[in-house]
Amino acid sequence: MKWFVNGRQKQTAKASSAYERCEKLEKQVLKTFNVAPIDGVLDDQIQHKIDMKTKPLGALGGLESIAFQIARIQNTLVPSVNKAKMIVFAADHGAVAKGISAFPQEVTPQMVGNFLAGGAAVSVFSQQHNVPLKVVDVGVKVDMPDHPLLSQRKVAYGSKDFSETAALTLDEVNRALEAGAAEVTDAVDEGVELLMFGEMGIGNTGVSSCMLSAISGVEAKQTTGRGTGLDSEGVSKKALIIDQALQRAASELNKPAGEWAPWEVATQVGGLEILAMAGAMLRSAELKKPYVVDGFICTVALLFAKQVQAEVVAYAIFAHQSNEQAHQVLLEAFDATPILKLDLRLGEGSGAILSYPIIQSAVTFFNNMASFEAAGVTNVS
Amino acid sequence: MKWFVNGRQKQTAKASSAYERCEKLEKQVLKTFNVAPIDGVLDDQIQHKIDMKTKPLGALGGLESIAFQIARIQNTLVPSVNKAKMIVFAADHGAVAKGISAFPQEVTPQMVGNFLAGGAAVSVFSQQHNVPLKVVDVGVKVDMPDHPLLSQRKVAYGSKDFSETAALTLDEVNRALEAGAAEVTDAVDEGVELLMFGEMGIGNTGVSSCMLSAISGVEAKQTTGRGTGLDSEGVSKKALIIDQALQRAASELNKPAGEWAPWEVATQVGGLEILAMAGAMLRSAELKKPYVVDGFICTVALLFAKQVQAEVVAYAIFAHQSNEQAHQVLLEAFDATPILKLDLRLGEGSGAILSYPIIQSAVTFFNNMASFEAAGVTNVS
Repeated sequence: MKWFVNGRQKQTAKASSAYERCEKLEKQVLKTFNVAPIDGVLDDQIQHKIDMKTKPLGALGGLESIAFQIARIQNTLVPSVNKAKMIVFAADHGAVAKGISAFPQEVTPQMVGNFLAGGAAVSVFSQQHNVPLKVVDVGVKVDMPDHPLLSQRKVAYGSKDFSETAALTLDEVNRALEAGAAEVTDAVDEGVELLMFGEMGIGNTGVSSCMLSAISGVEAKQTTGRGTGLDSEGVSKKALIIDQALQRAASELNKPAGEWAPWEVATQVGGLEILAMAGAMLRSAELKKPYVVDGFICTVALLFAKQVQAEVVAYAIFAHQSNEQAHQVLLEAFDATPILKLDLRLGEGSGAILSYPIIQSAVTFFNNMASFEAAGVTNVS
Repeated sequence: MKWFVNGRQKQTAKASSAYERCEKLEKQVLKTFNVAPIDGVLDDQIQHKIDMKTKPLGALGGLESIAFQIARIQNTLVPSVNKAKMIVFAADHGAVAKGISAFPQEVTPQMVGNFLAGGAAVSVFSQQHNVPLKVVDVGVKVDMPDHPLLSQRKVAYGSKDFSETAALTLDEVNRALEAGAAEVTDAVDEGVELLMFGEMGIGNTGVSSCMLSAISGVEAKQTTGRGTGLDSEGVSKKALIIDQALQRAASELNKPAGEWAPWEVATQVGGLEILAMAGAMLRSAELKKPYVVDGFICTVALLFAKQVQAEVVAYAIFAHQSNEQAHQVLLEAFDATPILKLDLRLGEGSGAILSYPIIQSAVTFFNNMASFEAAGVTNVS
């Protein structure tokens, strides 16, 4: 569980006064969220309903866990995820100038255009499942023309190069968190029952690796992978740039990675679309809505959100295990068994939307399967 | 690849005349299938179309393999799996009298009734995806009343107890293969493009373990698992009964498990619904239709079908890795990466139907995603 250790958790009686200052500062300045723990009053009834279905005990495996989780979150014996929405956050990253991605930065707005035109993976899968798609510009380096599917919430024209300087100001961090949260509030106002999040931002696999190292203290070599398709030389180079960023920030904060407060992680090495996803997750949890966690980048956003409010994790459904090397370890740290393992490494929320029909199947069996009694089938469980 | 070794493959110049007699006998008597290898003339064009989609090379992972496979089988650059059908084969097994299942035999017809009434897992998932469901009685121990969704193709009132005597006659084996094949012919006549197979038969996890041991020569201890929910004592007992069946048959055939011809495996230790599934797979492949392989039992049916006609495997899409212990090893032997890993252990074709929307997603991205050129996105691949 080394991956989950962060400064606050490690803090003991020996806490330095400098650290306490940071804690205080954080409380003053980082946008707060109030996620209530799930009360679980229906837990026994939910489990009983699952166990009385015409199948051996536990035979629907992961589907049973998902059904249980959704019924528990919605606090009902008749859950529903019919109304879903896919929200994709887009932003750029200054460190791309150092060569942390196989693709050039111009691809971020190009792909946003592709999402809006309906030609990207997340577009065609959302169409397949009749799930509305919203794209949110929280930090693309260029201005995006208006479009019915585009939400203009630009916080900045990309982050700064974190190997040289802090990536974001605290104000930018908070506005990114708020942008994600506001999109979820809008969706829930529309009646959405299940949120799915995706991201687009050339370089954001590297930024996620850096955030993961910053939160966990695990060295860049272990958190850095191929992203959209770097070769091993490219991966090594990326890890070096991330190490440089971590060392710069550690020196500035006067404490090693793994001991930074969330606001320090976010300002030093954060990415706008990743923080927006974290804000979206936290708001979903505040509003007691389940949400789907896509791949590596999205899982890092969740890890960040967990540092802000640990209860956020209870609302997360893990869609898939990606091909990015650190994702598996991260999922294990969350004790998560994702629905799919298709070696995807695309992002965009593509894994989340692919998992949606399976999540629907979980709710379908829970609501529609016959019980042993109703079907007149002998039960030996 | 030890699991794939069987008598015929191991046969060398030292072949015994007894073995040659069996080979000849087999050719005379086991129902034949003629599966053509896929010619693959469009392979390069199919791969090119995948690679030009707006995503990093290979970024859709397993989805790309599925799209490639389906386009290749259908020999087209515009594949379709819109029209699918779920066919569930049901039968009983004499060895249940010895205690190879947690559930009593009466549950087979009860569950068939549940399928037909729409209350079982495979029923509700088929409804979710608008996939027609057909249930085929190839060997239930009691007569099933007529029903619009039921196909009456009973070969026998269950198999005989394989720990005491050969489970089936060769005529029964061939009629089971033919029953499965005929259902597929009917489906294809209806315009079905993708076949999904399931099974119901109390005790059939044990029968599958026995068939797997019979084909591979791997001892029962390694091929036997919990089925629908045996405890470890129950599993040990089941393995003992299977061992007893294998030893009885080995003594009768005068050669050890792992060296039996397909007709010997099928008659000695086969199950009617498993053989019907094998026949269905072989006919699907004959008719150049892709089909979905469900869990452990279905994968054993495929292993059997492969002994009959090795080319059958090229048409198989692997749905999921189940909770049954031998399934993972078996999938590895097929070099298969299944779509789902949800720890299902239900059978019925439930994993196959759950994977259907993902298979549709593979075809959707292949047909509908924009290319780099069409979307004006920079390609660095």
